Amino acid sequence: MSALEKLRDRMAELSDLSATQMLAAWDQLVMMPAEGAPARAEQLGTLARLTHERSTGEEVGEWLTELDEAPLDGLDADVVRLARRDWERARRVPIELAAELAQASAQGQESWREAREADDFAAFAPALQRNVELARAYGECVAEAGESAYDGLLGDYDFGLSTEDLRRVFSALAQGLTPLVAEASAHTPHRTLAVPVTAQEAAVAGVLRRVGVEQESWRVDVSAHPFTAWIGPRDSRVTTRYGDGEVESLLSSLHEFGHALYERQVDPALDRTNLGSGTSMSMHESQSKLWENHVARSRSFAEVLASELGDGGFTVGAEELHATLVGVQPSLIRVSADPLTYPLHIILRFELELAMIEGTLAVADLPEAWREGMDGLLCVEVPSDALGCLQDVHWGGGSFGYFPSYALGCLIAAQLWEALERDLGPREQDLSRGETGAIQAWLAERVHRHGRRLDTLPLLAQATGEEGLAVEPFLRFVAPLAGC
Amino acid sequence: MSALEKLRDRMAELSDLSATQMLAAWDQLVMMPAEGAPARAEQLGTLARLTHERSTGEEVGEWLTELDEAPLDGLDADVVRLARRDWERARRVPIELAAELAQASAQGQESWREAREADDFAAFAPALQRNVELARAYGECVAEAGESAYDGLLGDYDFGLSTEDLRRVFSALAQGLTPLVAEASAHTPHRTLAVPVTAQEAAVAGVLRRVGVEQESWRVDVSAHPFTAWIGPRDSRVTTRYGDGEVESLLSSLHEFGHALYERQVDPALDRTNLGSGTSMSMHESQSKLWENHVARSRSFAEVLASELGDGGFTVGAEELHATLVGVQPSLIRVSADPLTYPLHIILRFELELAMIEGTLAVADLPEAWREGMDGLLCVEVPSDALGCLQDVHWGGGSFGYFPSYALGCLIAAQLWEALERDLGPREQDLSRGETGAIQAWLAERVHRHGRRLDTLPLLAQATGEEGLAVEPFLRFVAPLAGC
Repeated sequence: MSALEKLRDRMAELSDLSATQMLAAWDQLVMMPAEGAPARAEQLGTLARLTHERSTGEEVGEWLTELDEAPLDGLDADVVRLARRDWERARRVPIELAAELAQASAQGQESWREAREADDFAAFAPALQRNVELARAYGECVAEAGESAYDGLLGDYDFGLSTEDLRRVFSALAQGLTPLVAEASAHTPHRTLAVPVTAQEAAVAGVLRRVGVEQESWRVDVSAHPFTAWIGPRDSRVTTRYGDGEVESLLSSLHEFGHALYERQVDPALDRTNLGSGTSMSMHESQSKLWENHVARSRSFAEVLASELGDGGFTVGAEELHATLVGVQPSLIRVSADPLTYPLHIILRFELELAMIEGTLAVADLPEAWREGMDGLLCVEVPSDALGCLQDVHWGGGSFGYFPSYALGCLIAAQLWEALERDLGPREQDLSRGETGAIQAWLAERVHRHGRRLDTLPLLAQATGEEGLAVEPFLRFVAPLAGC
Repeated sequence: MSALEKLRDRMAELSDLSATQMLAAWDQLVMMPAEGAPARAEQLGTLARLTHERSTGEEVGEWLTELDEAPLDGLDADVVRLARRDWERARRVPIELAAELAQASAQGQESWREAREADDFAAFAPALQRNVELARAYGECVAEAGESAYDGLLGDYDFGLSTEDLRRVFSALAQGLTPLVAEASAHTPHRTLAVPVTAQEAAVAGVLRRVGVEQESWRVDVSAHPFTAWIGPRDSRVTTRYGDGEVESLLSSLHEFGHALYERQVDPALDRTNLGSGTSMSMHESQSKLWENHVARSRSFAEVLASELGDGGFTVGAEELHATLVGVQPSLIRVSADPLTYPLHIILRFELELAMIEGTLAVADLPEAWREGMDGLLCVEVPSDALGCLQDVHWGGGSFGYFPSYALGCLIAAQLWEALERDLGPREQDLSRGETGAIQAWLAERVHRHGRRLDTLPLLAQATGEEGLAVEPFLRFVAPLAGC
């Protein structure tokens, strides 16, 4: 076998291992009996170790060296380019550091869980301190030449984005959003709608059927937190949850559908290569946010949602439903934030985690900085750390550089949506009839099919015809929600 | 790390990979959307290749050589002994042969499916011919010194059993059963009971609850064919199926429970070693058959089953239910055979596959030999090959040496049951109240906890206090069913 064949065989193997890990994780959250947890942790640990060993082995480096001068066509050239990048990044991490990161992540999550329960930040501070130091060390290891530690961390989630890019775009975003928050608080009272679970279930099933979710190649299940698993190109699994008297399930099921659709529409030629999945965290989040914000929260699609709820036995007008889905209300908790204030929660986390990694914010000062930030960005007073800086698992698990993708997803979704409407014309009419075929085809062509062949920024430029991240499309999307 | 530590780490990894394969297979049959099949086949193929590579690597041989002279305590000595045996057997198979076996298995199953559909044995004959030749070559490779090809094949399922053992025991079994079949046909008319699916579901749930199946560490699902998956010591998954107006689900759910219980009660000290699972196919089948034949088909337990069916809305007397569960009726199809004639179906398959592997029966002559065998053993006339020698997938998939374990399971179950009643006293009273705790504890102590530390025959001798396979206990079990 040639070096290229060996490399492609290995990439196929790693792709299968990744699918297997996703299956084991899906099963753990959806099907596994509770007492299966310890054995599952061992199984997932073994799959992760094998994946690490098979992706960082010396032999991969030898194949890559052999391929240094080889004339390769487009697809093979990209396979080799990404394989080299991934291999080099992984090889920069000493084994001892990788082991310590894994251990600190498990212990930090446990410490975080207890501290949040007890509303006791001091109990979590040592674990957080350790996670910050390890993340800084890790970021320095993987950083490309000339990059900072935080740049290095970002690269794992969004290769090619710099801390400077984020500073610039988040500063503009905060500037644009802060006045809207004040407007919104004055104009659009938050509403609730007491939708029974049975009506939600009927509506979720009906809406997902309309966008193409069929049992031959999808599963829809319930889990504690909604998520998506892609086990194969024709084996997509989304989950949702149903809170009594809530409407979150309508939004979250289309949000998860967006993630799944991205993976399903990657070019089949990339299947079982290292290019055959979504290119980055922010681009993935843009796909879920596009369906959540620009489809599910549109006035037109509210007609469809109201009709499906009606079929489920709950009568509501499209106008009232829409108002509920887009109501703005500054609040304490990120995961239940409205579409306008959501990115401000992320900007706060970005600023704080960046300062911790750069060493300009001491871990002990985090709670106070959090309070100040919430006050400054959202005019919200934080009554406790449990409802403040202890609300998310990410830092307890050692994830730094991950939060930004949530806000970038909102921005990119809005940029893509404007480009899509420029190309296809306004979508109101189609959406009011529940027709999304043209949207799905546009996304397949402009975004999905490329897989990992293009990184976030080149992919965005190619899809929209414009360079770089921009905040204006998102601000144009949220302005009406603030009553402006 | 010492050679022993490296070996034990590798065994833990292989144990996790095996659990992962079982999960992927369970998911495929129970949860996976249909169009996920091609990707799942790739994933399972990758897991199998990785397992092969990690279990047969040169490095394993080096660790074993280092351990040749090492003084080892009981458990470690068994870990090394079995690791050496497994490694040596696997290494005897040339890579090309292993690859051809895998390919022939897939193609043979496809050919078998089409041939059975069309009732066209000639269309299947070439694939069967190839499978026989490959199995013979494989058996010769893995056979221990002095063994025949068929001995070698048997060793994969039941290490330590010889073709000669089987000839002797199956000959005695046929001799004992044949007169009973004639008796049965005269005395016990076959009965049916039209139990609605809802009542079956309620009874299966109720009975499984009584034997200890709780949702914290079990799953019970529906699949096309009942089977059991052990994903972890506390993650057992059985499946069943419900045919309208049938009672099979009552038997098959306890049958699968027996498989699951075996794996759950292996000594926790063997967890994640190469000793931590059931020791052989026949011993596994004995565990399922013990619950199917000696519990579910007992007159006492019929009280419990009838009561559970009653709770499910179907009224039937225990006497009538029991008569239905033990009715004898010679028939064409193995999987639906009654407990008395079942082993005769296996004896026929054993004789025919042995003759094909030994070269004394030409593949072309199989249909005729099948007809003669069914007539001689069961006095049943075979109207077509689809209902004759094409009914089972095994030979199409290349499995030879597997069938005997089904009959051995019946024999061993009866031997164990007599030993158990010698130790604990008659079980009638407990069974009529649905109490099986003492049975489970006896099985744990005498059979389950040993895992793979004892092979079939030593384990059986240790559990029963008697040497060797015996047919008398089984004949004593079935004689009353024949009205004798």
